[in-house]
Amino acid sequence: MRTLKLTLAYDGTRFVGWQRQVERAGESIQGALEDALARFEGGPVSVQGAGRTDAGVHALGQVASVRLACRHDTATLARALNAQLPEEIRVTAVEEVGADFHARFSARSKTYRYQIRTGAIASPFDRLYVWHVPERLALDALAQAAAVLVGTHDFAAFRSVGSTVSGTVRTITRSEWREQDGLLIYEISGDGFLRHMVRAIVGTLVEIGRGWRSSEEIAALLAGGTRAQAGATAPPQGLFLVGVEYE
Amino acid sequence: MRTLKLTLAYDGTRFVGWQRQVERAGESIQGALEDALARFEGGPVSVQGAGRTDAGVHALGQVASVRLACRHDTATLARALNAQLPEEIRVTAVEEVGADFHARFSARSKTYRYQIRTGAIASPFDRLYVWHVPERLALDALAQAAAVLVGTHDFAAFRSVGSTVSGTVRTITRSEWREQDGLLIYEISGDGFLRHMVRAIVGTLVEIGRGWRSSEEIAALLAGGTRAQAGATAPPQGLFLVGVEYE
Repeated sequence: MRTLKLTLAYDGTRFVGWQRQVERAGESIQGALEDALARFEGGPVSVQGAGRTDAGVHALGQVASVRLACRHDTATLARALNAQLPEEIRVTAVEEVGADFHARFSARSKTYRYQIRTGAIASPFDRLYVWHVPERLALDALAQAAAVLVGTHDFAAFRSVGSTVSGTVRTITRSEWREQDGLLIYEISGDGFLRHMVRAIVGTLVEIGRGWRSSEEIAALLAGGTRAQAGATAPPQGLFLVGVEYE
Repeated sequence: MRTLKLTLAYDGTRFVGWQRQVERAGESIQGALEDALARFEGGPVSVQGAGRTDAGVHALGQVASVRLACRHDTATLARALNAQLPEEIRVTAVEEVGADFHARFSARSKTYRYQIRTGAIASPFDRLYVWHVPERLALDALAQAAAVLVGTHDFAAFRSVGSTVSGTVRTITRSEWREQDGLLIYEISGDGFLRHMVRAIVGTLVEIGRGWRSSEEIAALLAGGTRAQAGATAPPQGLFLVGVEYE
């Protein structure tokens, strides 16, 4: 058996998310990938993903690890997988790695991107990849509030309701907004993310950018706020898993 | 009755094209627009489009004309139409114009754009909006061949097979390639376009860029070539009607 690191890009629009589900397995990214790999392996294959993206969330550089007996070289395997997979999922790289590599547990840092466009009329081409916010957003307030997130904090106020993970402390190394090609783009890097955390952060930041909240509220939310006190969860289609960094 | 000029952006992916069809009327852009307008008018409405885009072809600035009795102001009408239309179709402007305005017959010039990306692996995000060509294309050969199209020529070699329009002479004022954000973008402006003309031109130019043909062949095709001698028709999803110019 050898361990492989797969890098993936996918359009999550029509999928139930990364995670394989008992029903509708083929409609998850993980399920589609496992089904394609099982054809080469001639038996069931289990794949670990670095980030468990939700339904409608996209990836530019998701990473998955898998142990395979099949001896195809990595370039052949990449081509063959892409021939099997639906066109919304592409394997962009396959590398052989050490047996102790695990896409999720070996990850040192992940980067997510969130795309917003403001304006009275939503572009039909943004539909699947951008959150349309009709109001103008104050970029200086967005940037100021985003900067407060950098550091080690308790993100309990920014996780999905009903989530039962015990530890909610995470370290954020980058949290920045920029304007590019008429889009407002938020990028956040950190050692880990709770379920819906990026979307809850973006939803809260947008309420600050709209002037509904002051940028000081972020510090209060990090110092013991509850989910109900933070902003609404931003919609999934604006979110992209950009990449995963390893040692 | 007053005459209105509507400017439209649409994602043509799931539509049968601009033109209303007897069956599946609501799945055409024209049909969806006429159905939405009929609700305000309280009776059937007929809309003329500047360009009859095919199934899967998009528009950034399609123009339509319509005669309406209803007296809503133009801003209200735009908002109300967008509330009715599917999110793939947006009315970006409504203007009141002279009674002799006709979106197609009054048009002086139209501009189309075609998007291509080269590379071994297709991006899942290009799927609906870009033609993926695996081979590298020679940009200088593309540009040289494209320039030959400018002027007044007989485009019979670049129209769809089975087309029965009598006049096939058109004047092209601009025909250029550029590279932008990793895309190869072709833009062509002219006083009119035959059915499938832009896609037949792009398909032929790409065969030149691939090195399958020389750029001199364009001149020969314009000087009495047949459709069979020109290149394959490029796929629809890369094509956008960018805008329509009037006097």
